[in-house]
Amino acid sequence: QIGLKTNVSVNVVKQIQFADQKQEFNKRPTKIGRRSLSRSISQSSTDSYGSAASYTDSSDDETSPRDKQQKNSKGNGDFCIKNIKQADFGRREIEIAEQEMPALMALRKRAQGEKPLAGAKVVGCTHITAQTAVLMETLTALGAQCRWAACNIYSTQNEVAAALAEGGFSVFAWKGESEDDFWWCIDRCVNLEGWQPNMILDDGGDLTHWIYKKYPNMFKKIKGIVEESVTGVHRLYQLSKAGKLCVPAMNVNDSVTKQKFDNLYCCRESILDGLKRTTDVMFGGKQVVVCGYGEVGKGCCAALKAMGSIVYVTEIDPICALQACMDGFRLVKLNEVIRQVDIVITCTGNKNVVVREYLDRMKNGCIVCNMGHSNTEIDVASLRTPELTWERVRSQVDHVIWPDGKRIVLLAEGRLLNLSCSTVPTFVLSITATTQALALIELYNAPEGRYKQDVYLLPKKMDEYVASLHLPTFDAHLTELSDEQAKYLGLNKNGPFKPNYYR
Amino acid sequence: QIGLKTNVSVNVVKQIQFADQKQEFNKRPTKIGRRSLSRSISQSSTDSYGSAASYTDSSDDETSPRDKQQKNSKGNGDFCIKNIKQADFGRREIEIAEQEMPALMALRKRAQGEKPLAGAKVVGCTHITAQTAVLMETLTALGAQCRWAACNIYSTQNEVAAALAEGGFSVFAWKGESEDDFWWCIDRCVNLEGWQPNMILDDGGDLTHWIYKKYPNMFKKIKGIVEESVTGVHRLYQLSKAGKLCVPAMNVNDSVTKQKFDNLYCCRESILDGLKRTTDVMFGGKQVVVCGYGEVGKGCCAALKAMGSIVYVTEIDPICALQACMDGFRLVKLNEVIRQVDIVITCTGNKNVVVREYLDRMKNGCIVCNMGHSNTEIDVASLRTPELTWERVRSQVDHVIWPDGKRIVLLAEGRLLNLSCSTVPTFVLSITATTQALALIELYNAPEGRYKQDVYLLPKKMDEYVASLHLPTFDAHLTELSDEQAKYLGLNKNGPFKPNYYR
Amino acid sequence: QIGLKTNVSVNVVKQIQFADQKQEFNKRPTKIGRRSLSRSISQSSTDSYGSAASYTDSSDDETSPRDKQQKNSKGNGDFCIKNIKQADFGRREIEIAEQEMPALMALRKRAQGEKPLAGAKVVGCTHITAQTAVLMETLTALGAQCRWAACNIYSTQNEVAAALAEGGFSVFAWKGESEDDFWWCIDRCVNLEGWQPNMILDDGGDLTHWIYKKYPNMFKKIKGIVEESVTGVHRLYQLSKAGKLCVPAMNVNDSVTKQKFDNLYCCRESILDGLKRTTDVMFGGKQVVVCGYGEVGKGCCAALKAMGSIVYVTEIDPICALQACMDGFRLVKLNEVIRQVDIVITCTGNKNVVVREYLDRMKNGCIVCNMGHSNTEIDVASLRTPELTWERVRSQVDHVIWPDGKRIVLLAEGRLLNLSCSTVPTFVLSITATTQALALIELYNAPEGRYKQDVYLLPKKMDEYVASLHLPTFDAHLTELSDEQAKYLGLNKNGPFKPNYYR
Amino acid sequence: QIGLKTNVSVNVVKQIQFADQKQEFNKRPTKIGRRSLSRSISQSSTDSYGSAASYTDSSDDETSPRDKQQKNSKGNGDFCIKNIKQADFGRREIEIAEQEMPALMALRKRAQGEKPLAGAKVVGCTHITAQTAVLMETLTALGAQCRWAACNIYSTQNEVAAALAEGGFSVFAWKGESEDDFWWCIDRCVNLEGWQPNMILDDGGDLTHWIYKKYPNMFKKIKGIVEESVTGVHRLYQLSKAGKLCVPAMNVNDSVTKQKFDNLYCCRESILDGLKRTTDVMFGGKQVVVCGYGEVGKGCCAALKAMGSIVYVTEIDPICALQACMDGFRLVKLNEVIRQVDIVITCTGNKNVVVREYLDRMKNGCIVCNMGHSNTEIDVASLRTPELTWERVRSQVDHVIWPDGKRIVLLAEGRLLNLSCSTVPTFVLSITATTQALALIELYNAPEGRYKQDVYLLPKKMDEYVASLHLPTFDAHLTELSDEQAKYLGLNKNGPFKPNYYR
Repeated sequence: QIGLKTNVSVNVVKQIQFADQKQEFNKRPTKIGRRSLSRSISQSSTDSYGSAASYTDSSDDETSPRDKQQKNSKGNGDFCIKNIKQADFGRREIEIAEQEMPALMALRKRAQGEKPLAGAKVVGCTHITAQTAVLMETLTALGAQCRWAACNIYSTQNEVAAALAEGGFSVFAWKGESEDDFWWCIDRCVNLEGWQPNMILDDGGDLTHWIYKKYPNMFKKIKGIVEESVTGVHRLYQLSKAGKLCVPAMNVNDSVTKQKFDNLYCCRESILDGLKRTTDVMFGGKQVVVCGYGEVGKGCCAALKAMGSIVYVTEIDPICALQACMDGFRLVKLNEVIRQVDIVITCTGNKNVVVREYLDRMKNGCIVCNMGHSNTEIDVASLRTPELTWERVRSQVDHVIWPDGKRIVLLAEGRLLNLSCSTVPTFVLSITATTQALALIELYNAPEGRYKQDVYLLPKKMDEYVASLHLPTFDAHLTELSDEQAKYLGLNKNGPFKPNYYR
Repeated sequence: QIGLKTNVSVNVVKQIQFADQKQEFNKRPTKIGRRSLSRSISQSSTDSYGSAASYTDSSDDETSPRDKQQKNSKGNGDFCIKNIKQADFGRREIEIAEQEMPALMALRKRAQGEKPLAGAKVVGCTHITAQTAVLMETLTALGAQCRWAACNIYSTQNEVAAALAEGGFSVFAWKGESEDDFWWCIDRCVNLEGWQPNMILDDGGDLTHWIYKKYPNMFKKIKGIVEESVTGVHRLYQLSKAGKLCVPAMNVNDSVTKQKFDNLYCCRESILDGLKRTTDVMFGGKQVVVCGYGEVGKGCCAALKAMGSIVYVTEIDPICALQACMDGFRLVKLNEVIRQVDIVITCTGNKNVVVREYLDRMKNGCIVCNMGHSNTEIDVASLRTPELTWERVRSQVDHVIWPDGKRIVLLAEGRLLNLSCSTVPTFVLSITATTQALALIELYNAPEGRYKQDVYLLPKKMDEYVASLHLPTFDAHLTELSDEQAKYLGLNKNGPFKPNYYR
Repeated sequence: QIGLKTNVSVNVVKQIQFADQKQEFNKRPTKIGRRSLSRSISQSSTDSYGSAASYTDSSDDETSPRDKQQKNSKGNGDFCIKNIKQADFGRREIEIAEQEMPALMALRKRAQGEKPLAGAKVVGCTHITAQTAVLMETLTALGAQCRWAACNIYSTQNEVAAALAEGGFSVFAWKGESEDDFWWCIDRCVNLEGWQPNMILDDGGDLTHWIYKKYPNMFKKIKGIVEESVTGVHRLYQLSKAGKLCVPAMNVNDSVTKQKFDNLYCCRESILDGLKRTTDVMFGGKQVVVCGYGEVGKGCCAALKAMGSIVYVTEIDPICALQACMDGFRLVKLNEVIRQVDIVITCTGNKNVVVREYLDRMKNGCIVCNMGHSNTEIDVASLRTPELTWERVRSQVDHVIWPDGKRIVLLAEGRLLNLSCSTVPTFVLSITATTQALALIELYNAPEGRYKQDVYLLPKKMDEYVASLHLPTFDAHLTELSDEQAKYLGLNKNGPFKPNYYR
Repeated sequence: QIGLKTNVSVNVVKQIQFADQKQEFNKRPTKIGRRSLSRSISQSSTDSYGSAASYTDSSDDETSPRDKQQKNSKGNGDFCIKNIKQADFGRREIEIAEQEMPALMALRKRAQGEKPLAGAKVVGCTHITAQTAVLMETLTALGAQCRWAACNIYSTQNEVAAALAEGGFSVFAWKGESEDDFWWCIDRCVNLEGWQPNMILDDGGDLTHWIYKKYPNMFKKIKGIVEESVTGVHRLYQLSKAGKLCVPAMNVNDSVTKQKFDNLYCCRESILDGLKRTTDVMFGGKQVVVCGYGEVGKGCCAALKAMGSIVYVTEIDPICALQACMDGFRLVKLNEVIRQVDIVITCTGNKNVVVREYLDRMKNGCIVCNMGHSNTEIDVASLRTPELTWERVRSQVDHVIWPDGKRIVLLAEGRLLNLSCSTVPTFVLSITATTQALALIELYNAPEGRYKQDVYLLPKKMDEYVASLHLPTFDAHLTELSDEQAKYLGLNKNGPFKPNYYR
């Protein structure tokens, strides 16, 4: 949620040094205690999705997928997954997801005649979930060929990967990859004799990074990059600043629709879901402090207020602070309420918002969780000291116990609650996936010169188009401007209806 | 929620015939398709608690607990549970529960001097959960001796049962009892040489029924029955009408505090929780019809409205209907909206509210669930026909598939969503448990003649006392009347503050 | 809102002494500083309706209506009002009111055949407003003859009185009556040669009192009293206790529908309206303390929370206190927040809730108002001391200024804000008026012996009927029970659907 | 609210023709039926403020202020107002306003040492209200000299103008100016021997227009223009496009703080207030359609939903439409619900949103009002046809009656409800006034070259400063970044905290 605010350093070393740069990326999100791992895998690739739980593989097959001979029922073996036998189960998950992704299904329908991605060869690196599968199959329906790897070593739904492999996709991903596996899978996506990708769909920037490092010549044929994550976008802007971005890139992360849905509307629901699944806490009457009143904080506060919690807000920005006041929340400094609150939620995008000093002063049973940025907001490292006892009471739930018996309930070890302990509704992922598909179409079909070697936001009109594709889900009927009204407003009847800066 | 409305028949046959009567009880809640089971176990005993999931016993020890030799670490063997080794885990769950049950802990504290239940011998039959354990240990602290069985064959938390057994309680319960086990456990509670219970704490009426049937003489020494459930209270009123109730009984189910908390406040949260855990559905923009606008319906509607759903309400009672209107919900008949809604929720306490005709007309993907009474509201039996395919997609989630491919998402097979698919917050259970404890104390200590052989509601003042014991949780500060004000209002300064009929 | 809680004194002197009793009635509501007036007029008769503002009579005709010769256009002169020329304006107000009183209009329609009030001779004493006019004309349509006086010396809408007089009603009322006028008007209603009323419709009990005092023999022919107000009902219960109630009386005040609408739903809107009209205060971000969390308090709190205020609650009853907690309000003692709040609202039904000590500690600009009972809640008398300056800044708005310049904004001198400074929506009055009409019909047509010389609540079924008559306004469609369902629930398909105690 | 979206025409005639251009400005806002008036006064100057009602001048002094000899108590006569005797009353209103304008009072305090506007000579043309008076007196405290006229012929609070004149300000304004008076007053502000203004504070652009037309040379000494209104800003952008803007101008209208407060937060309250004061309608259960889901629409919808109305939304922009869906409103076309709704509210910024066809189909009693742009949204002219009868039932309330008796309740003749029928809270005006003051300071003190002859938005940091000055009102405590955190985020500890595009 902190977006691009940090990339302001003026003196960027012009020479790109991949290893170093990588390290730099990792500086911010590095989680203390796992430093060894994060040396070479970006942070986002180690966050785990709670929603990505595998349903079937309680079987503990310890053989590495890389060591197995794999073939689908048609004899195709150009993939590497956990277990092709789980394909049927995965297919059903995909079908269920299709029902909540109406916009992609609509794109498929419209593509029955012309194929806007005919000839496109897409390499992708994202979470491998049922929703991603719907996207991939849509891209195929639009004419593209796809090869895919996972952007996270934990998040792959093995059954879905199996269904994709069975369906003929070249997928290289399984839940629980090692670091070495991770890069091996990416490499298998990219590096195949006779295969020259011309589009990149990335989530976190690792795929892009790999091609930069290993196959820089590939960029000559690549028409563009579509990147979804904060981290990946940050990397692209750095490349751009350094004059090293050699193809156009589309920043999907900052499109209005995605922002509002991923943050405000999605967090409004996932804060409740995440807290309930982990702690069964009753919201009514609880005192809660929400740190940060951006879109995420607004969503959390609205939900908790509606459930009967008493909510306090902390802010650094006076405008957001005034909004919190007008919305009916007391604006406080954390130390004013830290002794009395039952729940502490961070949504600032900042680091060390909840430090040991505050943790020491919380009351017994206080729940602490993070809805904001990566794992930086709560100083979890400060809790790993000898006098405190950690007790894992449930999956994703630790009791940290003080010498006097006081327990703090820490969720997901300070990582993102909504990713770790709740599910992201398919409908929200549908908006992101549709935006990605449209961004690919736009970049692939754009006339020479429309996009330069720079990072672009999706045009407003496309944002509006993504939104319009989701309206039928709600049986929502849009009003059309009359000619007279359009003229009066100076607008095209088909949009865009708002200036680019309108949010 | 349907309360006592049905017990209006004046001419009740005076002769109690236990088998028949039992059958009669079962007429209402009988679930078609399981008739064989419900012949001899009351309905409530087969509802399962989702919250009661066992955390540890993935071990599939198939030996029946009844066939095992069991002893706790002190050599005591007067119990029968799944696995005494799980005691430590259970103890931790109990300790966690204690933190959210402040009123019981306060009662323990006050009882350090006098023991209001000294000499009480309580037989209990309730769900065996961490919260019940806190209640049982409180009763012990108050001076009582306890023997306990489960009121439901699925709901026992084996670890908690182990912890209780380890702590010296005579507990007879495990998750997954057979019908025969069920009654065997109850009998073991009651029937022990040298043991004559003098108080009954029941949930569903099965324990009371068993004593009536097998050991009617025991009632001579019994001072009273405390009953919590709708069904159990119904049975007691029937006994009372028939002139066969031979001890005073306290109807805990209809106390104000319990009603408001169990229904309005608890359902406000559990409707969201139950839907999320089973379907991950996004609430924003969804069209929902809630059948029934009593306390449960009010809670469901408020929560869904707050999350951005569009909510329709059906009602039979014009007063509740007008309340729904004033609260901003369109009041419709089910057939007016059944084609367009995304979610159908029943909260009527009635039967056959959602019948096959409506299920046939729902749109693809419609979610159907029950928050109301037992399993009668949705005519699930009508879906068990050859042309429809049932597919279990997750625990408690079935897709029922029509020949044209339409899927209905049926939750918990029409049983109570909040019991099956979400957890009941400990805080709510605390209110019930405290009410039970106070009811036991009241009956046990009441002077001869205060209570006759009838069914009583808890005195208003006790309801207020239960509430007051829970206020410190919220750091809530009650105002006291001045002498002048009390006189002006004609009230005692210590309450009761409202007439009995005030709700 | 305090209902019947006070009538608990057991030893009531059997001898009714009217003057004294009257004084006793007045003890509670007496407003210090106007004692001379309240000696012989009940408190409710001096509360003024803000909504009853006259639209046309800026003309300052100083002649007393009693001194004028009055005739309507048909030559009828059996009335006494301000100015018959205002009849057209009043008629339009009545027509507007008819549109929001659908239930009375429905009663008129149904009465086209049979006339349930044929032969009824009703004397009425209520606020004379457009809504009352719709009631009176409905009673006439149902077959009754009516004579009417005002129950309040300030609340008469002169134009409406004119329209009624022009329409042939014998109305005796004008805005700004003297005490002597007040009783003279009542007497003119009752005392006419050849007129023997057989029904009383009263609001405050003054009419009933007058007949008791002056024409006790009249009760021989009177079939019953319908009383709407708290005060009037209180008087009736006192009479009943004293064994002096000589006809059946219907307590309309405590019917469920009236309570919920007059209190919860109406106050939810009128608190905002009253504060805005008087002070233009912005609600967003304001800190408010609401004293009392009954129905009125619940309505006020819900509205202010929704508008972005931060709301604190004080309570004496632990059950209501716990509800406030669960609804998301901090429960405090008044002294904990009195220094920091921007607005203080009393809704307790108690006296001296806001005393001088609290007023002294409020911050500059604090707004103080009463939504509860009469004028007792704020100790306004304590502000009438020499060191404080009163400044009337608008109608109903006083600044009370402390020596250091601090100003408290006192609304309506502590009288009811919703009556003084906002309007009561016609729709709410419709519910009351319909209840009154049905109560009259019930008492008038009840077979001998159904009602004794006692105070009755409206039967639940009638309450439900009133509600059902208002549903069409909302295009609300009630569901009907099937035979099978009715049998299952043990209910009559036409209601009543809930036990009497259900609220 | 429609902002700057319309100024896109590319071929702007470079030659400015004042009379014509003026006509062009008026094309949009012209109200049919008053064309004669709007020939030479801009639309905004004829909108009237409900809040600006005069409290004291029931005296009907018919002499034009221009014909009177006027002097204040110190003998100063350089002003022209209604009645200097009302000064005391006006002073009290100003003092009351000061209490709700903490930021301006804070600016005064800080200016006790340095005077940032020392030497500034400000001509102003705004609504003359108590709030404006606080602004003017603040500017004076900051060192400026001021001369002022009204920007609207109806909106002047005569008492406030008197207090300002008494205080030594050269004010030229009264309620009920003629068109000729309007320009005469503006001219008196500008044109005084020995007076050369160097700053302009305008609301609507009429003052700027007048100087352009009559005294173009004056601009040589003018350092800048601060403009608040949509219309005025539109004019400035046109001038800028035409290359004719000869000084820097600050667009105060589009600052974030103003937008959020004037639109979202203020309308959330004023929609309720405006509807209540005009119609006393009960909101609970009412069906309402809100046309447009921008900030204004969002505010209206949130308030009505909270009060228990059932709200439908129409939109043209799919993004706003999707937000409406997620917020729980059914998105419809107007014709789908026009027959069933009780209230129609326009907030589109468009024209002819509610046309005769819709008005014909509304049900009896439907309330129609405009919260959006000027008076264009409802086609009121289409109702001025012979077959319809207009009946003025209250100030600002007309019944339009169809031949069949159907009545539509039209508020404020389709002009802005919030300006005409409710009051704007002082606190909101405080934000605007503070922004104006800071904009004046910024332009006046900016070093040569910082601002060119263009239209500027207030720097983000100043927006944040305005917000921060209002936080103490809510006793709100802002959190400060630590050095480490600021570095991590790449932010200055004092802000700005968000990019300029963040809203």
